Amino acid sequence: MSDKTRTMTTTYEALKARRLAIDMTRGKPAADQLDLSQALIDDAAAAGYLSRDGIDCRNYGHGLGLPEARELGGQLLGLDPSQVVVAGNSSLELMHDAIAFAMLRGINSGEPWRLADEVAFLCPVPGYDRHFAICEALGIRMIAVPMNDDGPDMARVEALVAADPAIKGMWCVPLYSNPTGAIYSPEVVRRLARMPAAASDFRLFWDDAYRFHHLTEERYASPDIIGECVRAGHPDRALMFASTSKVTLAGAGLALFASSPRNVDWWQRCVSVRTIGPDKMNQLRHVRYLRDRATLAGLMDRHRAILQPKFAALEASLQALLGEVADVSWTKPKGGYFVSLFTPDGYAKRTVELAAQAGVVLTPAGAAFPYGDDPRDRHLRIAPSCPSPAQIEQAAQVIGLSLLRALDEGVRRRA
Amino acid sequence: MSDKTRTMTTTYEALKARRLAIDMTRGKPAADQLDLSQALIDDAAAAGYLSRDGIDCRNYGHGLGLPEARELGGQLLGLDPSQVVVAGNSSLELMHDAIAFAMLRGINSGEPWRLADEVAFLCPVPGYDRHFAICEALGIRMIAVPMNDDGPDMARVEALVAADPAIKGMWCVPLYSNPTGAIYSPEVVRRLARMPAAASDFRLFWDDAYRFHHLTEERYASPDIIGECVRAGHPDRALMFASTSKVTLAGAGLALFASSPRNVDWWQRCVSVRTIGPDKMNQLRHVRYLRDRATLAGLMDRHRAILQPKFAALEASLQALLGEVADVSWTKPKGGYFVSLFTPDGYAKRTVELAAQAGVVLTPAGAAFPYGDDPRDRHLRIAPSCPSPAQIEQAAQVIGLSLLRALDEGVRRRA
Repeated sequence: MSDKTRTMTTTYEALKARRLAIDMTRGKPAADQLDLSQALIDDAAAAGYLSRDGIDCRNYGHGLGLPEARELGGQLLGLDPSQVVVAGNSSLELMHDAIAFAMLRGINSGEPWRLADEVAFLCPVPGYDRHFAICEALGIRMIAVPMNDDGPDMARVEALVAADPAIKGMWCVPLYSNPTGAIYSPEVVRRLARMPAAASDFRLFWDDAYRFHHLTEERYASPDIIGECVRAGHPDRALMFASTSKVTLAGAGLALFASSPRNVDWWQRCVSVRTIGPDKMNQLRHVRYLRDRATLAGLMDRHRAILQPKFAALEASLQALLGEVADVSWTKPKGGYFVSLFTPDGYAKRTVELAAQAGVVLTPAGAAFPYGDDPRDRHLRIAPSCPSPAQIEQAAQVIGLSLLRALDEGVRRRA
Repeated sequence: MSDKTRTMTTTYEALKARRLAIDMTRGKPAADQLDLSQALIDDAAAAGYLSRDGIDCRNYGHGLGLPEARELGGQLLGLDPSQVVVAGNSSLELMHDAIAFAMLRGINSGEPWRLADEVAFLCPVPGYDRHFAICEALGIRMIAVPMNDDGPDMARVEALVAADPAIKGMWCVPLYSNPTGAIYSPEVVRRLARMPAAASDFRLFWDDAYRFHHLTEERYASPDIIGECVRAGHPDRALMFASTSKVTLAGAGLALFASSPRNVDWWQRCVSVRTIGPDKMNQLRHVRYLRDRATLAGLMDRHRAILQPKFAALEASLQALLGEVADVSWTKPKGGYFVSLFTPDGYAKRTVELAAQAGVVLTPAGAAFPYGDDPRDRHLRIAPSCPSPAQIEQAAQVIGLSLLRALDEGVRRRA
């Protein structure tokens, strides 16, 4: 055991003795981020119930959302309001339902996916565990494709989508991707829009979750996938999802679905059977609070002021402990809610286990892969948004020391 | 043409000339009913975001609902809170999703319904058009069974359910049924709970939409279907749905799902893939506003004070115009939102058409039947909640005169 390793092990034991209880599993906003939108609560009475157009928001109706909420959505997404649907409090719901509708009823004139022998989705990895959970629950086979810094490995994606008619969809988080922070390049986006697909009803499930969630001064722009698809002659290919969950209130925000006019008609046909309308009261409160794109951008600056120091604290601690360790790397995202830490092959699970024993709970190793299976057992997802900066420093030490200890165990096993 | 008919026809033309525009299609609360819950809007700031148990309602989580909202639901439904789920703003959503989950994933250990050769539902008729729309959209065959004053024709229901394993479900609106106002008798409820079913995963879709919606001094009680099913040895048979849509705000209320512990576990497994939690802020506002069963009952009395005169105006006008017409009858509901008018066979469509020409829009004739097909063309659904009493009087005159005119056309056709 080297002196350095001995020191590290001691420190791991010392941290363990402190009985920490830090949850780094989910991309949850912290309370002070939610406080930023206190006006949404305080001004609810002033928002009232009558929309600009005289719609009584208390009553039934308007299945695609309050007109001014759709206008705000259009402004935020850079689309015509007629292409934007506002509904529910969670974009995950809308993604689930889009797949459920496609399975049960088909998309547009296509036959219901449930009648196909098999339905498969491409899943860039590491990716978002909740996307994969939907596929697993609904019996959709997942095909992992590698994620690079500029988006998914397009040669592989193109080959698969062109060849296999069972591939009906592909998950994409185009900006500050969950969990690596990857930013899809314009070239990748163009290729996704243009590639030939064996399935005529192939769809990109475009989860623009972090469209406004910058961590640096540079505000990267989400690519205009819907425009690219139109230009590529595949106008109905992209189903876009976004929400204000990490803008206003995580559990009580607005969710957005956007797509081609034809897909919006399809959505309307499907949801009109499911509901007599969304909660327009919450839409009205949001419209009066968020107002426009500039107001929202100002709010996101205040989120950044809270989040950026947390990511910086994580980065500094990881650098101090792991900066010189071979085959260890981590992402330095420009936005979003996650950091990916890559260990040498075979050490992710053990690191998560050791961190848990020292009171730091991480997402299970492998969670960012279909079926929870990271074939190289080397990826950890770290969510630094919710704990305080001091907790994040401690947690990062626990994670770093857990990995070092795991590596040391490996050395000793081989000795 | 008799003198009386001539007078009626003249009056129909006179009413038509007034260019009325009265919508009697949907069971929508009127604005003054929504006004009753103004405190829900005014006191939103005071409700805040911290639950009794210190849960931050702004954030993610609690997929089955805020604990105190489930407790309130339990009190309202007469069930243990652990059997109650609070989610979304519309019980229709929950019914749709229960069927979608059953189709895609199966119920409990049962195989997904989509794998069955055929799925069929029993539909007491006349019934709720939106129930039937869900079945039609999801490819479920509908089998109409007659609805009596005390509930569905049980001999027929028992024979069908015992014989046909394709029958996976049955729609039930047990109290003040949509649209006839029927009240299921205790005997009918017992038989529904006890009857043998060929499909082991047969479910009653128990839409307790009008549980609190009395129109008379007598508050009829919804039958305890879940208890009956337990006693009958079919503890998982009933899936119960309710909402506060017609209690607080139609578009921004709380929806409730209740069932056996096993079915609630199933629901949790299904929805945990779909969402990170419902809008707990709206649940908190509701809990602080509605408080308990007694407070809700007081609120419903105020709804009754608004609604009862509208039903009375409709009844009086129909009686004056149609009281002595052979083979014409209508329901006098003790609660709920609808009146059913039965014409002689073959006159419903024409009556709706003539009423529309005179500015009174009714639900399309046949809408209360599967596939929109009323085989005897004799049923009209009238929704008197939204227009003013004066409008209802006019509308009832238009409906009555339209029917008389249609009958007169019939006489002349045959002559």
